[in-house]
Amino acid sequence: RSAIRPAGGQTIFSRMTALAAETGALNLGQGFPDADGPEAVLAAARQAIADGANQYPPARGERTLLEAIAAHQHHWYGLEVSPDTDVLVTVGATEALASAILAFVEPGDEVVVFEPTYDSYAADIARAGGVRRTVPLRFPDFALDEDALAAAFSERTALVLLNTPHNPTGKVFTAAECATIAEHAARHDAVVISDEVYEHLAFAPHEHMPFASTPGMPERTLTISSGGKTFSTTGWKIGWVTGPADLVAAVASVKQFLTFASGTPLQHGIAAGLCLPDAFFAEQRAEMAARSALLVDGLTRAGFDAVAPQGGYFVLADVAPLGVDDAAEFALRLPTEAGVVAIPASVFCDDPDASGMTSVLRFAFCKQRSVIDAAIERLVDTY
Amino acid sequence: RSAIRPAGGQTIFSRMTALAAETGALNLGQGFPDADGPEAVLAAARQAIADGANQYPPARGERTLLEAIAAHQHHWYGLEVSPDTDVLVTVGATEALASAILAFVEPGDEVVVFEPTYDSYAADIARAGGVRRTVPLRFPDFALDEDALAAAFSERTALVLLNTPHNPTGKVFTAAECATIAEHAARHDAVVISDEVYEHLAFAPHEHMPFASTPGMPERTLTISSGGKTFSTTGWKIGWVTGPADLVAAVASVKQFLTFASGTPLQHGIAAGLCLPDAFFAEQRAEMAARSALLVDGLTRAGFDAVAPQGGYFVLADVAPLGVDDAAEFALRLPTEAGVVAIPASVFCDDPDASGMTSVLRFAFCKQRSVIDAAIERLVDTY
Ligand SMILES: CSCCC(=O)C(=O)O
Ligand SMILES: CSCCC(=O)C(=O)O
Repeated sequence: RSAIRPAGGQTIFSRMTALAAETGALNLGQGFPDADGPEAVLAAARQAIADGANQYPPARGERTLLEAIAAHQHHWYGLEVSPDTDVLVTVGATEALASAILAFVEPGDEVVVFEPTYDSYAADIARAGGVRRTVPLRFPDFALDEDALAAAFSERTALVLLNTPHNPTGKVFTAAECATIAEHAARHDAVVISDEVYEHLAFAPHEHMPFASTPGMPERTLTISSGGKTFSTTGWKIGWVTGPADLVAAVASVKQFLTFASGTPLQHGIAAGLCLPDAFFAEQRAEMAARSALLVDGLTRAGFDAVAPQGGYFVLADVAPLGVDDAAEFALRLPTEAGVVAIPASVFCDDPDASGMTSVLRFAFCKQRSVIDAAIERLVDTY
Repeated sequence: RSAIRPAGGQTIFSRMTALAAETGALNLGQGFPDADGPEAVLAAARQAIADGANQYPPARGERTLLEAIAAHQHHWYGLEVSPDTDVLVTVGATEALASAILAFVEPGDEVVVFEPTYDSYAADIARAGGVRRTVPLRFPDFALDEDALAAAFSERTALVLLNTPHNPTGKVFTAAECATIAEHAARHDAVVISDEVYEHLAFAPHEHMPFASTPGMPERTLTISSGGKTFSTTGWKIGWVTGPADLVAAVASVKQFLTFASGTPLQHGIAAGLCLPDAFFAEQRAEMAARSALLVDGLTRAGFDAVAPQGGYFVLADVAPLGVDDAAEFALRLPTEAGVVAIPASVFCDDPDASGMTSVLRFAFCKQRSVIDAAIERLVDTY
């Protein structure tokens, strides 16, 4: 993995956020909003603290949140999820991923992942003793390579790890792509973990489709999501897993000894968020789409080869047109040279060349328009 | 382990709390207070939400909490802890234990634990592929058996897991006992993880001594604590690890991929709690000591052989005088028979006979006096 990848208890995101703080650069690195989410969410959490919701929640989660998650899955996707047996609240998507991977991967088992891959996936698979089989999503169109997909499956395949909308490429997997993946998963009797934390941030005309909606998949799919991205509460780390009772129970039996439970009053806040009217979600999506367009346009003006994302928080942009081959090295001087922090896409790859990520940077647009404008101005001025 | 030990993602604590809810029994099972902690703590968390402390904290924790933890260690124990390098905030003590055990135990390594043992220790050691070597703390005096201690160490010893004040026995390890343990740990070059979540609940004349105060131990000891028990916020799950920079970094590198971080605004609440005047801690301790005396007295009147705890949240009581041999079986009928929930101490044991726990129940006294009184009345009436 890339030499920029830090060790000693610091993720690439922490490292780059620290670099932003040290240099005073604008932080388009770590994916967190720089403004608060809906007051209804914040108020519900404050009220829960005042109302005494401060002791251990049930291990599966506060009842009000379990019910809100089940209702949300039904309302948005027509999925039937029982709040009694099919939901587990976790410490963000991170713990959901760690618990699920530990639950389903035995040493030597293979896990199909799409590369670039969110950093914790590789760490979790390694901890479980699993072997990654990667399918590259190639810059700039990130199309599903069906041959590479077929080649990634084997007799040892235990798990498929999907992420849609995808971090960092911004790809939203289509129903047809999901069907292709589903066929392989079914043939190899693999469990599918679908990380859908950006579910409410697929930009028109692209639409988020939960992988669990794919025919034949409900009984083998665990869907992971989180309130952090949707409600701009990334620090609350209230996430969840939904799926068939037996798979959720397997995740719960790992999770119970990682953290037991967390954030009782914050769970009430996220429950309130999930019950917000559809208009909230639509406005949020439209605003993020607008910011993504703003950033793509600005990066293009600065001479970067930026790709419009279909969803999520991030834009990928090739810096080769600026005469730079190694985005990792470039990312380290960008803060002082231009006053902007971005993340090199190579940190998400075992083999950055395979997906064309060597000279690609990731920029976050989950920031106020004024911050995006200022970053663009700096980049245009510098390059 | 005991047949009462549940599977499928439910700890014994969750199971017994659910049983209390189903039967309407008074819950002296799971260790959580039934009243809120200091308003200063709750207000600080509410204010942090209002002030926008809702995004990812730094991976080590919010600066204000790191500083409060370091200051607390210095103020109470004279320990020098750098907020920059020697502290890691975790999702309660549970995640601190899971991360530390995964960091320091390789497959085949041995871990010295005192039995009865808090339930997550065994699960964590098993996940890491480690082997438990148990030292029994025998009912009713829980004295340190120096021969058993010596016998538990071997060439494969990697870790010692201590818990003081101890759950469930209420034992507070003395300086002399710590020195004996320290000698073995040093001789075998073992890391010591000392779980001290009840640090502020050692009842006079007993005094909590951090294991890290033992001569020669600072450089090999990780101390775990949590705000949950001290500030009656068990559901916030804000815990921490302190110790030498290199050991804390090793824990952080596991923790970063279990949950990354959590509870940003709640971290501010706990920081406020750690800065409360000494009088708060003294009053809290005196109140819990009084409740423990109340419960011991009541259990004795009901015919149980109850042992006065030196600290913590729990009383152990032998039910043999009632003609009951198997406390696990008894615990399942206690809720309907007497309207009280307790936890059989055998669930904390591999070998309940070795520590005399077969006929012992654990009762929590971290409950309002009226609840303790009502539970005693029911027990006195029934037995
Ligand atoms: C947990 S920090 C990383 C946040 C994030 O999702 C990202 O920046 O990709
Ligand atoms: C995490 S639930 C268990 C609470 C507790 O510490 C106990 O009851 O022993």
